[in-house]
Amino acid sequence: MDGPIIDVDRSSAVPLGAQLVDELRRRVLGGSLRPGDPVPSTRALASAIGISRSVVVAAYDQLAGEGYLDSRQGAVTRVAELQPRTERAADAAAAGPGTTAARSASPSVEAAPAEPRINLLPGRPSTSRVDTRSWRTAWRRAAALEIPADSPPPFGVPRLRAEIADHLRHARGLDCSPDDIVVTAGTSEALGLLASVLGRGTGRAPALAIEDPGYPSARRLFERRGVRTHPIGVDRDGFDVEALRRLPLAPDAVMVTPSHQYPLGGRLPVATRLELLAWAGAHDALVIEDDYDSEFRHLGPPLPALASLDRSGRVVLVGSLSKVLTPWIRLGYLVLPPTNSGLRDAIGASRDDEACPVPGIAQHAIAELLASGAVRRHIAVSRREYAHRRGLVLAALDGLPGAPLSGLDGGLHAVVELSDAAASAALVNRLDGEGVAVAPLSDYSAASGPGRPGIVFGYAAPSDTQLVEGLARIRGALLDRLDPAARRVDASARNPAANTTKVDLSTTRPDPVG
Amino acid sequence: MDGPIIDVDRSSAVPLGAQLVDELRRRVLGGSLRPGDPVPSTRALASAIGISRSVVVAAYDQLAGEGYLDSRQGAVTRVAELQPRTERAADAAAAGPGTTAARSASPSVEAAPAEPRINLLPGRPSTSRVDTRSWRTAWRRAAALEIPADSPPPFGVPRLRAEIADHLRHARGLDCSPDDIVVTAGTSEALGLLASVLGRGTGRAPALAIEDPGYPSARRLFERRGVRTHPIGVDRDGFDVEALRRLPLAPDAVMVTPSHQYPLGGRLPVATRLELLAWAGAHDALVIEDDYDSEFRHLGPPLPALASLDRSGRVVLVGSLSKVLTPWIRLGYLVLPPTNSGLRDAIGASRDDEACPVPGIAQHAIAELLASGAVRRHIAVSRREYAHRRGLVLAALDGLPGAPLSGLDGGLHAVVELSDAAASAALVNRLDGEGVAVAPLSDYSAASGPGRPGIVFGYAAPSDTQLVEGLARIRGALLDRLDPAARRVDASARNPAANTTKVDLSTTRPDPVG
Repeated sequence: MDGPIIDVDRSSAVPLGAQLVDELRRRVLGGSLRPGDPVPSTRALASAIGISRSVVVAAYDQLAGEGYLDSRQGAVTRVAELQPRTERAADAAAAGPGTTAARSASPSVEAAPAEPRINLLPGRPSTSRVDTRSWRTAWRRAAALEIPADSPPPFGVPRLRAEIADHLRHARGLDCSPDDIVVTAGTSEALGLLASVLGRGTGRAPALAIEDPGYPSARRLFERRGVRTHPIGVDRDGFDVEALRRLPLAPDAVMVTPSHQYPLGGRLPVATRLELLAWAGAHDALVIEDDYDSEFRHLGPPLPALASLDRSGRVVLVGSLSKVLTPWIRLGYLVLPPTNSGLRDAIGASRDDEACPVPGIAQHAIAELLASGAVRRHIAVSRREYAHRRGLVLAALDGLPGAPLSGLDGGLHAVVELSDAAASAALVNRLDGEGVAVAPLSDYSAASGPGRPGIVFGYAAPSDTQLVEGLARIRGALLDRLDPAARRVDASARNPAANTTKVDLSTTRPDPVG
Repeated sequence: MDGPIIDVDRSSAVPLGAQLVDELRRRVLGGSLRPGDPVPSTRALASAIGISRSVVVAAYDQLAGEGYLDSRQGAVTRVAELQPRTERAADAAAAGPGTTAARSASPSVEAAPAEPRINLLPGRPSTSRVDTRSWRTAWRRAAALEIPADSPPPFGVPRLRAEIADHLRHARGLDCSPDDIVVTAGTSEALGLLASVLGRGTGRAPALAIEDPGYPSARRLFERRGVRTHPIGVDRDGFDVEALRRLPLAPDAVMVTPSHQYPLGGRLPVATRLELLAWAGAHDALVIEDDYDSEFRHLGPPLPALASLDRSGRVVLVGSLSKVLTPWIRLGYLVLPPTNSGLRDAIGASRDDEACPVPGIAQHAIAELLASGAVRRHIAVSRREYAHRRGLVLAALDGLPGAPLSGLDGGLHAVVELSDAAASAALVNRLDGEGVAVAPLSDYSAASGPGRPGIVFGYAAPSDTQLVEGLARIRGALLDRLDPAARRVDASARNPAANTTKVDLSTTRPDPVG
């Protein structure tokens, strides 16, 4: 390998592995490392830099996954023939609601929506490293099973329920039984199911307290089903239980994201969790724990699910494989509190009438993916990848004056808060003009009014190249905002590519509830 | 072939092909035709009996599909080695909500519900002849596609929407565009989606007129979402528009099964259809056309879908592949009236927030199955099979005094109406005791009260052997009811097998909405 040994900056917030990957990538892209060149052994490089060998192994793994290195078993690792990374075509089949064209005037009927050139909309995981062999095997096996003449069992195929319980034991430390699992068509169907049983038979419209800011699509989901929603503010730690107590009438349920407040990122402390449970007990209310991305925790020890603290059958956990794998498969679940037979019976009656909406064959395929360990391995790979990406975000945007970065303790999105609504809208529009799609933080407001200024963006799905370019543009825009006359730090970001896709972000909503 | 040439009875209501299949099957089972014996060529047999050769071809096809004949390309058709037809094991994975154990005290959480020995619950198609090769190929191809990081497009994958529109053109004579199709997770999710947009923003609870008797699970589905339902009686022809007009306040929508009233079987005449459309126009109401089994029409010309008469954007058609293929795949669709942009926007907003619930991979697989012609071929095969089964039903139960048989013009279920509620309950219980599961007609009542006496049963999913035995038991029970001392016509039906599974039918509900 040419060039001096790589220097790492131990004082930087960027993890050592991310620095290493970054530098090696830069050398390959810059041509100082050429296709076919051998790179040092992981042992040699680790020793030369003075870092743990496992960090180097992970960095090489990542670069191999990205196509920069070719590390066949037993052979010397070399720089790979660089083939342009397949950018996801604007495949109509893949264009989800998070894409902008799908949200234009006639929102959902466009056959082939254009994608923004750099899609940093939140809620999109990385799927480039899904083990396609396990994936195909799982579907092949599921397709080989006999085809029943019935709907799938109301709560889901037993094998999948067992695998989900097992997954939650390992990934979330949640001790639950397969009997407690209800298989759902993603989070939104899970919430719709809860909405249909909430406070029915009381003679008045059911009410739900929700986080503000929070999932706006979840709020609308409940309202569409006749549930009144009451926004409750969040602070640095998450949900404000004190504000919940001040509501004149206790709602039938409260929905929270205690592990990683969406979108701001707070983690509800144990004391507040206990207060929330006490409130629920006192008011015979349900707590809906939206555990949407807890498999990915980058900083600080993960707290167990709120459901694991529940002793009185008040907490129902909602989870999905949308972030763990992809929302493309529409696979989620409820974990019912085992002692709450009223809730279980109501959901059972609903499912008896309406059937489990997840195709039996998909249930078997996902069960197979979980059983084979492919999901567990994918989470491990993704966790490393997201930690690296998070490093890129911090390197580009941390410490900019007047633009605090948050939400990064876990998950796959980040938030830049701003102080001024007009400047925030201008930022989103400017990025839009440069082909970078991000979501305005104001869209996450549950209350009416202008909403909090800032942006929310995801860092999991784009390629590294896209992410680095997108971050440079965000940084440039934020710096210009401070001093419009200032030159950008990175001049290259000034040059919007000629073929930038124009994206009308005025119609962009945050990601669907998944 | 031993024995005299088969006689067919041209005066019988049983189709000639069904008679032929029946007789050949009887000879194989009775041993007068043995494994390896050649059967006459289709041409020779057709000529000998004096019926169309195509009838004989269809009969041989069917017997080959059932495993009685071995008709390899180019070789003489022979009686096959008889292997016991694989009765579907009480596979927990396959046990749907229609099975009884899933409805016991803790309805939905049982891991391995027992199935009734002869499951004649309605709503279950025949899946034994699905072309497994096409099925597996379709899933394999879908699994080989790139895995997107987004939810599927709000209204579904474009390719599937195009294939569904094409299917409806051919199977239902409905001229619709792919733009009008919304892919849903079966009929129930389609109805839930409609419920969430129905009469919202009017400040009062939305109201829906439904058929009585009708789909009880659909009624509860709407009520669970805060929609008030108004039962409207049905007569021989179906929905009673006059009764709809008499409602003090016009509802926001009306749900009808005009092609084949569920469960009674009436077909709404064109004049009544026009009246219904006029009423909808006058009251700005939506008409939900539940087109649940119209691909199978046995008698009388099929009427085009009500939606095809709609000129003012009032009719939304709901269909699924649940009867065409299997409810196991949870695949349905809405056909939106192209001119009703309000409805389209409301559904688009819902789907933008909640995403399309059908896994992208399932959408591609089903699109492939439709495109390859496998679904069309399966409908053709099933139609012949159901016509044959319908013949068995008529042969066993037609003309019994005091027990009129109806619902048989199309579809895959039949109704025996009775005059007395107590006798009806006793019939269901007796059949239950003999291991035959049927649904009480009273369960289909939308209004409170005892409901109409009678039974509803499906004839599509069971094997011929099971169906014949089940029908004999129904016949025996009906005859005994007329004259308890009378001997049954078929003494063999008197002998309930020792291993009859006891089934508690008191908890059995009719099939879920699908």
